[in-house]
Amino acid sequence: MNDVVSPSRLASALTDYWSPRVIGEVDDAYIKVAKVKGTLAWHSHEHEDELFLVLSGRLRIEMEDRTVEIGQGEMFIVPKGVRHNPVADEECEIMLIERKSTLHTGDVVIEGTRSVEEQLRAN
Amino acid sequence: MNDVVSPSRLASALTDYWSPRVIGEVDDAYIKVAKVKGTLAWHSHEHEDELFLVLSGRLRIEMEDRTVEIGQGEMFIVPKGVRHNPVADEECEIMLIERKSTLHTGDVVIEGTRSVEEQLRAN
Repeated sequence: MNDVVSPSRLASALTDYWSPRVIGEVDDAYIKVAKVKGTLAWHSHEHEDELFLVLSGRLRIEMEDRTVEIGQGEMFIVPKGVRHNPVADEECEIMLIERKSTLHTGDVVIEGTRSVEEQLRAN
Repeated sequence: MNDVVSPSRLASALTDYWSPRVIGEVDDAYIKVAKVKGTLAWHSHEHEDELFLVLSGRLRIEMEDRTVEIGQGEMFIVPKGVRHNPVADEECEIMLIERKSTLHTGDVVIEGTRSVEEQLRAN
């Protein structure tokens, strides 16, 4: 992974929604990209913050006390322990920063849950 | 810091070169932006990887065994322990991910070294 990469190009190449791909690691955190549309699941990460950076499109993050809209080039950090539900009305490409220990659907396991091994695939 | 932010807009608003500003935190890492031109200093971070994401312009990272060029929208991770020298021939805006313990000039302290307190300033 030790090379210059374009998160946007790597995200564009993804074919499945909500199936993150690891594109780098910074100490105990993974840098991931994902292509998303629709919604995944309400979940939380008890011990880990999660950063969403929108590469293209628009992402809404519903939380119990408020909702935020993240436009292209903008970022938002969901604090640890906060239940959230990411929603993309239209196709959206995102970059994520998550601790290596983070399960991307947090405290819930659903059909769409992807293991870290799947996220480490080459493409 | 718990809001939607635009790294590009925050980087554009900076007035001093090589003076990073913290714009978010993900667990034990800081998300920073900086406006850079010219060079800072050869240095390394013995225990910490460092991610550079170019928001605008172009950044060259010289290392002892090779040099990489990072274009707009691209990223590169300098592995821990690797001596490096970031160079921007023209003004360039970057986003950085560094552990909270990382001193941005690593193992050297120069006139341009900014303390974490300075980097946590409001603007």
